[in-house]
Amino acid sequence: MTLQTTSAERVRTSFDKQGMLRAIGATLTDVRPGSVTIELRPGPSNRQQHGYVHAGAVSAIADTAAGYAAQTLMPEGRTVLTTEFKINLLAPAVGDRLVATGEVIKAGRTLTVAQSKVYALSGENQRLIALLSATLIAVDHVED
Amino acid sequence: MTLQTTSAERVRTSFDKQGMLRAIGATLTDVRPGSVTIELRPGPSNRQQHGYVHAGAVSAIADTAAGYAAQTLMPEGRTVLTTEFKINLLAPAVGDRLVATGEVIKAGRTLTVAQSKVYALSGENQRLIALLSATLIAVDHVED
Amino acid sequence: MTLQTTSAERVRTSFDKQGMLRAIGATLTDVRPGSVTIELRPGPSNRQQHGYVHAGAVSAIADTAAGYAAQTLMPEGRTVLTTEFKINLLAPAVGDRLVATGEVIKAGRTLTVAQSKVYALSGENQRLIALLSATLIAVDHVED
Amino acid sequence: MTLQTTSAERVRTSFDKQGMLRAIGATLTDVRPGSVTIELRPGPSNRQQHGYVHAGAVSAIADTAAGYAAQTLMPEGRTVLTTEFKINLLAPAVGDRLVATGEVIKAGRTLTVAQSKVYALSGENQRLIALLSATLIAVDHVED
Repeated sequence: MTLQTTSAERVRTSFDKQGMLRAIGATLTDVRPGSVTIELRPGPSNRQQHGYVHAGAVSAIADTAAGYAAQTLMPEGRTVLTTEFKINLLAPAVGDRLVATGEVIKAGRTLTVAQSKVYALSGENQRLIALLSATLIAVDHVED
Repeated sequence: MTLQTTSAERVRTSFDKQGMLRAIGATLTDVRPGSVTIELRPGPSNRQQHGYVHAGAVSAIADTAAGYAAQTLMPEGRTVLTTEFKINLLAPAVGDRLVATGEVIKAGRTLTVAQSKVYALSGENQRLIALLSATLIAVDHVED
Repeated sequence: MTLQTTSAERVRTSFDKQGMLRAIGATLTDVRPGSVTIELRPGPSNRQQHGYVHAGAVSAIADTAAGYAAQTLMPEGRTVLTTEFKINLLAPAVGDRLVATGEVIKAGRTLTVAQSKVYALSGENQRLIALLSATLIAVDHVED
Repeated sequence: MTLQTTSAERVRTSFDKQGMLRAIGATLTDVRPGSVTIELRPGPSNRQQHGYVHAGAVSAIADTAAGYAAQTLMPEGRTVLTTEFKINLLAPAVGDRLVATGEVIKAGRTLTVAQSKVYALSGENQRLIALLSATLIAVDHVED
């Protein structure tokens, strides 16, 4: 309990330092061991030329959710960096809000693999719009 | 010549509508047939918690460079959407500026594959920090 | 029912023509709408230099399971080709047998995205060893 | 010279233990520091149902070329394992022979990123049919 709370607190503190996520309007909505959810409201600061949310913004919330999901399982003093990710964009990113949930698939001492799904919610409807898989590497704490 | 200019103009006009790229501080610096370059100056609106440029921002400029590189080879009335991309993040994204160049690897009627390389420039030094491969699908012009 | 049976039969007939899968010792063990399972017994024809199953063999069964999962949802006269896939290799591929199950994530007229998980089974234990995501393109039937 | 020869010899010795590559008919044709080439002749043991070379076989030679390219830069007693790769299949794999060349993009102590291009050669013509990017992790020598 205490450990999980501490881990969640570390994630929340870290998230608040994410200048880009703030710039594009993302918020952290759920943190559990091995699973993190981030939301985004479509708006001017995250759109591409057709009015959809930019693939880079969809990737940013999906990658960040995957990374923090990995982070929740790290011991204190260790943090993670994304070494690679792949994202399949399944449908145009339109809706009232986008919800990205990252889940750890395989936790390792050096490498962790996590997966994120991004849904677009519009009224009662939700639609899967993106699927991401990422490799994270654990490193000693970087001062932030 | 005329065709290329027209294609480059279409890319420039489209880029100006990219709310997210403006929000994170990206600029379009070069457009040629099959090759497009986008730059980003590290700053508060594109950083993650450690002060590096966010993987989502690196991905956004790399994916956009790849997409516009594909766009330059499209006939008028056709545009492209990213269906998937994968990015390897090779080194922390720090420097005076990041330069992403996308190049078309294989142009097709339906699918185009493009690749982007992102360099971090610091004074005289440049370092490859990311490698992206993307699949773009051609669609009829979306009103924008 | 009839349609599903027909679709499963088409998959089974197609699988029997797969020279490479036969060469490396893979068998088709389950075909359902949107989901296909392929198994492989580790042996000399699918090993790499350390005695593990080769990443190419793991990829072959994972990609084929994803492709046939997409194929089951295609109308008659349409088939699919893999345009890209990404695989995360999570643990060394050792065990009594490997089981790859592909599932359709998003079916589309032109593009289908599918995902495969590969487990290594040893006695009572099973371990997730690979995660693959693939994009398949529908094409008119290719004579085979 | 001596070091390179030794490294090339280690790659050749290792390649000879690759049961799967032998089963599908692949041969090692060139080994240089940071670059390795593998060839495959299309035939019954590497075909899929339409008569093309199986995506799994294309992946196997591309991934192996990338892995050995990384291996050439490893100190003695260290070997590499593929942790993930992504491959874009650009055109049907048909021709007299397929040639996969892997090149190291970024060598690191723990992780190396390499890229492979696969060409299909038919008479005088050559065509790029696949592009792969892979992450390799260095591990202490595994007995083989």
